[in-house]
Amino acid sequence: MSSRVTVALDAMGGDVGPDVVVPAALSALEQHDDLNIILVGDQAVLNPAINRYKAGGHGRLQVHHASQSVEMDEPPSHALRSKKDSSMRVAINLVSDGTADACVSAGNTGALMATARFVLKMLPGIDRPAICTALPSYSAHTWMLDLGANVDCDAEHLLQFAVMGSVLAGAVDNNEHPRIGLLNVGEEEIKGNEQVKQAGQLLSASHLNYQGYAEGDDIYKGNYDVIVCDGFVGNVSLKTSEGVARMIARFIHEEFSRNLLTRLAALVTMPVLKAFRKRIDPRRYNGATLLGLRGIVIKSHGGADALAFANAIKVAIVEVRESVPERISKQLDSYLQHRQAI
Amino acid sequence: MSSRVTVALDAMGGDVGPDVVVPAALSALEQHDDLNIILVGDQAVLNPAINRYKAGGHGRLQVHHASQSVEMDEPPSHALRSKKDSSMRVAINLVSDGTADACVSAGNTGALMATARFVLKMLPGIDRPAICTALPSYSAHTWMLDLGANVDCDAEHLLQFAVMGSVLAGAVDNNEHPRIGLLNVGEEEIKGNEQVKQAGQLLSASHLNYQGYAEGDDIYKGNYDVIVCDGFVGNVSLKTSEGVARMIARFIHEEFSRNLLTRLAALVTMPVLKAFRKRIDPRRYNGATLLGLRGIVIKSHGGADALAFANAIKVAIVEVRESVPERISKQLDSYLQHRQAI
Repeated sequence: MSSRVTVALDAMGGDVGPDVVVPAALSALEQHDDLNIILVGDQAVLNPAINRYKAGGHGRLQVHHASQSVEMDEPPSHALRSKKDSSMRVAINLVSDGTADACVSAGNTGALMATARFVLKMLPGIDRPAICTALPSYSAHTWMLDLGANVDCDAEHLLQFAVMGSVLAGAVDNNEHPRIGLLNVGEEEIKGNEQVKQAGQLLSASHLNYQGYAEGDDIYKGNYDVIVCDGFVGNVSLKTSEGVARMIARFIHEEFSRNLLTRLAALVTMPVLKAFRKRIDPRRYNGATLLGLRGIVIKSHGGADALAFANAIKVAIVEVRESVPERISKQLDSYLQHRQAI
Repeated sequence: MSSRVTVALDAMGGDVGPDVVVPAALSALEQHDDLNIILVGDQAVLNPAINRYKAGGHGRLQVHHASQSVEMDEPPSHALRSKKDSSMRVAINLVSDGTADACVSAGNTGALMATARFVLKMLPGIDRPAICTALPSYSAHTWMLDLGANVDCDAEHLLQFAVMGSVLAGAVDNNEHPRIGLLNVGEEEIKGNEQVKQAGQLLSASHLNYQGYAEGDDIYKGNYDVIVCDGFVGNVSLKTSEGVARMIARFIHEEFSRNLLTRLAALVTMPVLKAFRKRIDPRRYNGATLLGLRGIVIKSHGGADALAFANAIKVAIVEVRESVPERISKQLDSYLQHRQAI
């Protein structure tokens, strides 16, 4: 028997706000009987949205008023200083005081990181949060971190990412020994930069199931469960992937729209194309975790629709059930002990 | 009227060697009346291959013997020291002594870079070669560099890459003011690392058509003509792209192979799928340039087939016709003068 899970949603974040968050909340509530949701945001905006989606009076949905909201392009330091009653901040506060088990926001990533770090604090042994998500692979998926939180990382940071990624993959996928890869370049002359070489040594000496260097194409092959890199490289790699997938989708569309014959072919092929699109639908991979905090904070894509945002809520639920932060904390302890012993 | 072009081919390089290089040479000779090719390699291996492809006696094809060859996993320093009669080294020598206008090799990238740098030397004002190639975009293609030659770059290196990329795009695409982008992360909190921020300032102050920061997905959008990054990020981004494209191709194949109906759909869709595959065929993008050398050296993918290798020869021909190294040299002069003036 699993106990109840309460998730606070920053209802004002993202490009759209309540018109994405409210229907996503309803869809998640329908799928999870043991889920409670707290919508955090401006009542004057939220209540009409709740009425629009006929969600008034839902027993497991409540509203928590917050008078401010963080802009998508607002500097994180400004949000931290002068938006103490923002929907984002209040949602994180609810996690901090134990009212909620996790929170989800589609808002400003920098502000979310800064606020979460300020309110929840980092786990002992972790310097900064890392952004982690699952990306599709041939076989299942590959967890990748950091995706943009830390642009300058030393070897020690990369090791912390590996510990956190290993715990997340272990917990969510029920995988006792996730295979860890360290992202590197494949050119023969110079295998990686200094940080990566040092991180490789730290990982080899660790208790993790470290498999060695991975290259960019390994992310999608499924031969690693977790791939670790600094946030600059990770962010570029993630955005590059989105760019390639979007270009290919556009080329397919263009080829099928070329003339009457190709349009007929598209009709015949519709079910196949639909199945294919579903497999690479980025919405199914929405919901990145801010790992390393004393609490669960999930970042949804800013442009997420209701289906994508509902997926981010699902990520939050899984992490609550699997006690991800507590498990990271334990693993870190065991790593530090292992390290002292050698 | 264009004058004759002579290209030396490292016939022993790559995973396959003569059985790729000889047919590729024949195909290139057929397409270009003013092309001469020198096949460099072990006569005992090359002559039988030439007979196999019925290329004996071709007036514009000659063989230049080289007794050694560089292994794909050989350390570059070893190749440089003890492979002075390798097919790779001799092909580069032919460029150095003016016998050939350019050379193409599918061999060990690190060894090719080290040897080319040692034999041909760098252009004045350039510290190290950068690997540059064109990647497909919505509209046409985007030139990207560095793709793996330099894993640690400072701002000055990134600027040199921008100058070289701008010249290459300008020459090959007949584009007077190529739009330059500097690859960066999109997260709000921290826009880039120190090198990138400094490079952005150098680029803004330069005479180049600098358009600001680009993100990973911009590579495929076509809103920049040249995207500049360090070799670590560039290599990961390139390999990531290959990985995504391969995964998508596999998913398409799987969905069409699912059952009799989907197989019939595949038959109907065949011409569309073929047209689509042709558009993203990586062989059409084979042939990366080692920019910054006093001579033209083109790196083919190690696993290239004859079609792909022939494309790399085409890249060499274009760069010879457009005098790319001389133009880079002039642009650098004008940049340095511009810089002294301010």
